[in-house]
Amino acid sequence: MSVTAPKGFRAAGVAAGIKQGALDVALVVNDGPDTTAAAVFTSNRIKAAPVLWSQQVLRAGIARAVVLNSGGANACTGPAGFQDTHATAEHTAAALSGRASRFPVGAGDVVVCSTGLIGERLPVRKLLAGVDAAARGLSRDGGADAATAIMTTDTRPKTAVHSGQGFTVGGMAKGAGMLAPGLATMLVVLTTDAVADASTLDTALRGATRRTFDRVDSDGCMSTNDTVLLMASGAAGIAPTPAELAAAVTAVCEDLARQLVSDAEGATKEIAIEVAGAASEDDAVEVGRSIARNNLVKTAFFGNDPNWGRILAAIGTTRAAFEPDHVDVAINGVWICKNGAAGEDRAKVDLSAREVTVTVDLHAGDEQATVWTNDLSMGYVHENSAYSS
Amino acid sequence: MSVTAPKGFRAAGVAAGIKQGALDVALVVNDGPDTTAAAVFTSNRIKAAPVLWSQQVLRAGIARAVVLNSGGANACTGPAGFQDTHATAEHTAAALSGRASRFPVGAGDVVVCSTGLIGERLPVRKLLAGVDAAARGLSRDGGADAATAIMTTDTRPKTAVHSGQGFTVGGMAKGAGMLAPGLATMLVVLTTDAVADASTLDTALRGATRRTFDRVDSDGCMSTNDTVLLMASGAAGIAPTPAELAAAVTAVCEDLARQLVSDAEGATKEIAIEVAGAASEDDAVEVGRSIARNNLVKTAFFGNDPNWGRILAAIGTTRAAFEPDHVDVAINGVWICKNGAAGEDRAKVDLSAREVTVTVDLHAGDEQATVWTNDLSMGYVHENSAYSS
Repeated sequence: MSVTAPKGFRAAGVAAGIKQGALDVALVVNDGPDTTAAAVFTSNRIKAAPVLWSQQVLRAGIARAVVLNSGGANACTGPAGFQDTHATAEHTAAALSGRASRFPVGAGDVVVCSTGLIGERLPVRKLLAGVDAAARGLSRDGGADAATAIMTTDTRPKTAVHSGQGFTVGGMAKGAGMLAPGLATMLVVLTTDAVADASTLDTALRGATRRTFDRVDSDGCMSTNDTVLLMASGAAGIAPTPAELAAAVTAVCEDLARQLVSDAEGATKEIAIEVAGAASEDDAVEVGRSIARNNLVKTAFFGNDPNWGRILAAIGTTRAAFEPDHVDVAINGVWICKNGAAGEDRAKVDLSAREVTVTVDLHAGDEQATVWTNDLSMGYVHENSAYSS
Repeated sequence: MSVTAPKGFRAAGVAAGIKQGALDVALVVNDGPDTTAAAVFTSNRIKAAPVLWSQQVLRAGIARAVVLNSGGANACTGPAGFQDTHATAEHTAAALSGRASRFPVGAGDVVVCSTGLIGERLPVRKLLAGVDAAARGLSRDGGADAATAIMTTDTRPKTAVHSGQGFTVGGMAKGAGMLAPGLATMLVVLTTDAVADASTLDTALRGATRRTFDRVDSDGCMSTNDTVLLMASGAAGIAPTPAELAAAVTAVCEDLARQLVSDAEGATKEIAIEVAGAASEDDAVEVGRSIARNNLVKTAFFGNDPNWGRILAAIGTTRAAFEPDHVDVAINGVWICKNGAAGEDRAKVDLSAREVTVTVDLHAGDEQATVWTNDLSMGYVHENSAYSS
């Protein structure tokens, strides 16, 4: 299902030979009647060629299709890499225009996403042949193959569907490392059959990413290729209120974000850091992120050590409003730190499960936020020292 | 030698039973004639009791002695922990006043430093008995024992001596993890027999730490206990110019900082990140630190992978002035990234040695800075998941 759950979308995933034997090219096409779209891109200043291209496409608030490849990021590839992206969009537009489309597709309506190793040119001939195969294979059942074709070190495809009143939002995502604020090495395609103009889509998407993908921080690293795209076909004939649409988009994003954390490279723990009692939501996020990024906190969780002292030290590096002797910290519900000092017995903390909840009460206000992260494991070091990405 | 290399200082290191069997209490006494001093403390807002105490001591620009313990940080221990520090200073002052001091020592002249696990009370009875033993054992040869007594996960004591024109600066340091900007879990005691007022010492020390300890970033974590103390006895009878004094203090700090990187927990690589062509020194430091803190860069070096794409991605997260297509990166002298894209063959890069040099040319100005860091290794994860600190 995934991106083909909403009406008006077809998709395909094919093996183009970029990665030996595996599916590596995905195509998602919006058959309309509407072709409105919105997207959020990496805030890294080093942007891959497909990001630079797709930012231009989205300026008009329209997208007819998105073509994605794994096996190469096409980042830091200079002008030649940008030409490769341009050629991919042109080729995709031509392949779609010849094939039962209701109106011609221009290259400027095709979003391009790439993921994989930075700094190497893509095998363009293979990629374009893959685009042809994908265009031939487009179907209303193609969502699962498309989700598989965008995987890199992911151990499983990630899809989600949420139904609103008379409309549906579907999505697929890839990403298993480099998850970080301002997005991650993360490609996400969301589709909906709701009727919505580009501005409404943009508002819904930015609100959803701010509370979901932006709060997933696996290793503090921000990629060159992150893209979250939302396309609307209008095929359901229903125009939900902006709030209804935002709620459905957020639900799909939250589902996918949790799947990203769950599949993070080498992780043995999924850690929700709930920060409450903050003077502002920004303070809560800053404190949560500081804990999520602290390698000593993360290694402690890998060692099943409820080391609240390292959590306090991480909180102390932020600018958030709090008094050091008013901070409480619980791990899995045991308040082992009260008023900035030792509280309940740390032996009461059970860290045997994969899921861990850290609760911080700053006692400085009424705002709260949750940030998700992982432990820092032997497996993370192994995978990222062996895999060139 | 170390802190007892300059004239006018005695030191001791003893085993007080805080850590089983090992030296764990150090004492360094300034016999004068001068007792001027300056210090820099952690910028973490969660400050250990000894930091809160010692900040008060240093307000007057005077220190007669510093007492240090390993085996417990006395951080996040509440008002009772602060009383423990106060009692330690009182006890040290009394022990020194009864023992051939040229004038009585007050508690307010005694700096206290602690290092070890956060969140647990110190065994004060053992500590005070250790202070007595240390006071009895003070000698002009005690620098080596003092340097050993402050070790935690350090594999070796760290000392340095630098001679100026007619004066000497000596130092000892501990710290093997949690090295980060705004200092590290790092205790450093520097001594000099130069004649210098507190203001001159303060300027020399701040300038030195800014360019040395503040640019060592092993794991981006900032501790609750960091203290760098500089005491001057004036026993050499020489008043160097501020520039001469600053140069000697900086030389000792740089020597100790490199030893900290060299002994970082589990590290297999010592990495100097030289950023040149920056619009400002701050830009150069920001870029260097961003690379030093990037877990994907650090795991790549552990895997002997010259992964310049991850370095570019780290640079892209900064606010430094640069154009993405004007950045060059060399690893061990091989310019594998030119103009933001692939340059020389990455196979030319030899990463077999422990020392690695990353050179970044931003082509945005004439300023430069170097940041030192380590790789992120299996050993780091193992040590920090097994050791509660």
